[in-house]
Parts: sequence; structure tokens; C-alpha cells
Amino acid sequence: MNHLVALDWGTSSLRAARLAGDGRVLEERSLPRGILTVPPGGFPQVFDEVCGDWMRPPEALALICGMAGSRQGWMEAPYCPCPAGFADIAAHLTWIEPGRIAMVPGLTCEQDGVPDVMRGEETQVLGALELLELDAALLVLPGTHSKWVQVAGGRIERFSTFMTGEFYALLRQHSILGRTMPPEDGELDETAFERGVSHALRSSTLLHAAFSARTLALFERLPAAARPSYLSGLVIGEELAAQQLAGGTDVVVVGSEALTRRYEIGLRLLGATAQRAGAQATWRGLRAIASTLEHRQ
Amino acid sequence: MNHLVALDWGTSSLRAARLAGDGRVLEERSLPRGILTVPPGGFPQVFDEVCGDWMRPPEALALICGMAGSRQGWMEAPYCPCPAGFADIAAHLTWIEPGRIAMVPGLTCEQDGVPDVMRGEETQVLGALELLELDAALLVLPGTHSKWVQVAGGRIERFSTFMTGEFYALLRQHSILGRTMPPEDGELDETAFERGVSHALRSSTLLHAAFSARTLALFERLPAAARPSYLSGLVIGEELAAQQLAGGTDVVVVGSEALTRRYEIGLRLLGATAQRAGAQATWRGLRAIASTLEHRQ
Repeated sequence: MNHLVALDWGTSSLRAARLAGDGRVLEERSLPRGILTVPPGGFPQVFDEVCGDWMRPPEALALICGMAGSRQGWMEAPYCPCPAGFADIAAHLTWIEPGRIAMVPGLTCEQDGVPDVMRGEETQVLGALELLELDAALLVLPGTHSKWVQVAGGRIERFSTFMTGEFYALLRQHSILGRTMPPEDGELDETAFERGVSHALRSSTLLHAAFSARTLALFERLPAAARPSYLSGLVIGEELAAQQLAGGTDVVVVGSEALTRRYEIGLRLLGATAQRAGAQATWRGLRAIASTLEHRQ
Repeated sequence: MNHLVALDWGTSSLRAARLAGDGRVLEERSLPRGILTVPPGGFPQVFDEVCGDWMRPPEALALICGMAGSRQGWMEAPYCPCPAGFADIAAHLTWIEPGRIAMVPGLTCEQDGVPDVMRGEETQVLGALELLELDAALLVLPGTHSKWVQVAGGRIERFSTFMTGEFYALLRQHSILGRTMPPEDGELDETAFERGVSHALRSSTLLHAAFSARTLALFERLPAAARPSYLSGLVIGEELAAQQLAGGTDVVVVGSEALTRRYEIGLRLLGATAQRAGAQATWRGLRAIASTLEHRQ
């Protein structure tokens, strides 16, 4: 199996790796060249700057996942419908240079008459499960737009997006709740975070629960330094409550160390368990898509 | 019964009225002199400018409700605990000039170990029920922070705040959802609003439902001009779903014409009915508090 040039090209950052045939990472690069920084028509040049040297061998193959495949990116890669596994994704690649550079499609699924979408997470999810040697799991990818993903038989069956990180930022930066908070979030206050999660679990909706951040401050029942952690607990608690997890459910958490810690605490409060995914999930996912291509040839 | 000088002094505006003993409005004034516009120590002067002429008779009495009684206002009027009716509120007045100018207290109630608060709405709620000749009802006062209020035996038993209007403004102005919307909200698109309410009713949480405003736009399944109405339906639908109203429940809606219309549509979708409160609810409430005082003398 040939070397693979793997790119995770998101909205605000770009990561690239050169992978051996067995998936080992030979070299890795990370740049602040997310798609928002690239002028129209500028994608080939950025690609060359980032990994032109890796693309010299004639048999070189590059696979790109993430928002670079969106309408605002290099080339729009139409969404692949769920259920979808590596083979389905490999069959839906959009080739920028045939046989040489391809865009991995995002996924779409329809629930309650409304579509949902992801771009980049599909590769991360399937790669994470390869690393964990699982072909079925419930996963969460926390972030600005958290994704909850159900995988069965090695294929993503369905998923749902929760705007948890974005709601936190809105409430923190632009709402009345932020006015009585310190300028910086500081370290996580686990007690305040748990209190926020617990209140969200008891509450009917975040529209109501969020107001508790105001009244607890008003009556001086929550120290100023603890308020960002409490608010974080409220929004993450709201997201977790919506999953209606049975006790003992195991959830694979794929995310940054800081967010993973918060979800572990929240899941424990719900009686669920959390399993961390290995690092390098995206590279493993892109390697697996490339292998699928090679097997078909 | 003497004339009453009644003030509804809120965060961004100030309304004043001179009321006859029977509650008739003799004269009304409205000024953009909300508490945010008043410099520290400037409240007596603004009060004089607004209604000094009405306060000349030695027997003049002024009652003020709203945020002027908050810590950031003229003088802090400590919250009165629920349940509370006119008599309880009258017993908790904070006198700025004894027997002459008093601040109506806001209310507080505790649920799930967390306090909730209102200031001004207590007067509006009890006044609205006097006008409707009811002593028990479920009411909603839609707005930046909507209040749902349960009244029994002429007393406010409990209430809950929902940050619905503020969430709408945050999502509209600062989130990714606003980016594909026209600069102005325009007229209400009732079909799109109903679609938003219905989606919120089916959805587990606004954190998820809100993302539908993005994906429907992405797949061009919701015209740009209809998106603000759809988003409004999502947030109001989330608030309504949280009430778990039994079919046929009658809800008294106290608010602006535009918001009342939206809540009527939403309540109808839930199988509940809406009753509008008469105008002048705040004046009627302040008149009733003054009457309670006079009866005690």
C-alpha cells in the first residue's frame, strides 16, 4: 500500500499528515490556514505550500476531509446519505485531480422531516472505531456543534447535531448572564459544573435553566469565578439529557482533553459510562478510505 | 379614594399615569427614561420632571413598579416571597417618602433549589386578572424573559422565567443561523412560524432543533425571508413544549399585539386556548395595591 497524504481541512485550521501503508504517521503539519483564510481560487496554492513536497511521487494520493469540501471550500463534495461506512464514503469521493487528490464527502441523514449534516466527523468517527476495534457504538464529538452518532455494522446509521458550544459562547459573550462573570473562563470548577449539569437534567428546557445562572448570581449563591463552569454544565447537561441514555450505556467520546473531561463528568451523573477514543482517529479514517479504494482497483 | 400617580419604570422605558379613584386613566405619559438612562442619584429629578405636577396635592400618592426597584434602580425593594396577592405586595412596599412615594416589590419563588424572580410583571398579572374578573389562571407574559405564572385564589402561587426573547436575539444576531437571514425580520410568515413551532414540539431540545434552521437553509428548503419567522417558531415552540399543557388548557396572554399573535398560534397547535388580557393591566394592578393600603388605614 502506498503512502497517503491525509488532510483535515476545517473552517479555522488545517492539519496534514503523511501516512505509511500500515497507517503509521510519518510526518505531521498543522497550520492556521482554515478555509476562512483562503481567498477564492487560492486552494491549490495553499495545498502545494502545505504538502507539495509529499505529492511528488507519481503514485501519490491525497485525501481531504472537512469543510474544504463545503460550498465555501475548495470544491463542493455532495453529501453522502446515511447509513454510510468506509466503502460508501469511498464511492462518493469528489476528485479534484482524478486518481490523485480527492475530497471526502460529508454525510447527511433525515430525521423528523429535517436534514442533518456533518463534514469531517464521519472520517473521525469511523477512524476512532477502527482504533477501538469496534464496529458498533454510540459516539459523541463535543464542540461548537456537537455530533451524536450511532454506528452499527461499521456504518454510521444516523446522527444528530447539537449547537452546544455555540450556545455556550452566545450566552457567555452576548447575553445578560455573561455580565456578572469574570472576563476569562479560568480553570474548570468541577463542583459548579456538576451543579449546572444536575440543574439542566431536572429542568424542562435550557430557556428556563439558563436563567438560574442569573438568579443564583443575584442572590449571591454562586461565586463569580464559578459561573462560567456552571453555565457550561447547564448547556452540556441539556445536550446529555436529550439523549435519553439508559443507565450503563457506554458512550465513546471523541474530542479535546478539556471537553472530554466535561462529558465524562456529565455522563457519570447520568449513570452512563464514557470511553475515550484514541488520538489520530482522522488519520486512521482517511487511511481506511484509501485502503478501500486500493482494494477496489 | 384619592387620585393615584402610577409608574411603570422599566429598564429601557418609563410610563406614568394619573388614575382616578375608580381606576379611570385621567392622563398618561411615556418617556424613554428607563433606569439605564438615569445617572446615579438622578432618580428624584427624573421623577419630578415626569410627574412633579401630579404630586402637588398634599394627599398625593405615587406607586412605582418595575426595575426602578432593583439594585440598579432608585431604591432596592426586596423581593416578596410567593404566594403573593395584592395584600402581600402592599405589605412589602419600600417607601421612598413615607406615605407619599413607594416602590412595589418584585416577587421571588424557589423551585428545584433555585430562585426565580420578577419585577413589574406581578403588578401586570394581578391587574390583568382583575380586568378579566378572574382569581385563578395560568398566564404567560412573553418577552425578552417570558414569565409563566400560576395564580390561585387571587395570589401568584409560582412562576418560571424563560429566556426566549433573549435566545431569539442571540441566535438571530450573533449565531451562524443569522448569517443566511435578511437584515430585517420583516412581517411574520405564519406558515414558517408554525413549521418552527411544530419542529420544536417534536424535538428533544432547542440545542438540536435550532440546527434545522441551518440545514433547511443549506438545502434550500426554507426561503431566506421565512427564516426569521421559522427561528421565532423554534424558540417559542420550545418554551410552549416545556409547559406540558393539557389539551384545552386556557392561557391568559399578556403582551404586545405582535407577540400575543405568535403565542396564540403556538397555543392552538398544542390544543390549548389563549385569552387576551385587557390593556392597562399595570395601572389596574397599581390602583388595586393603593386600594389595599387605603382599606388598611
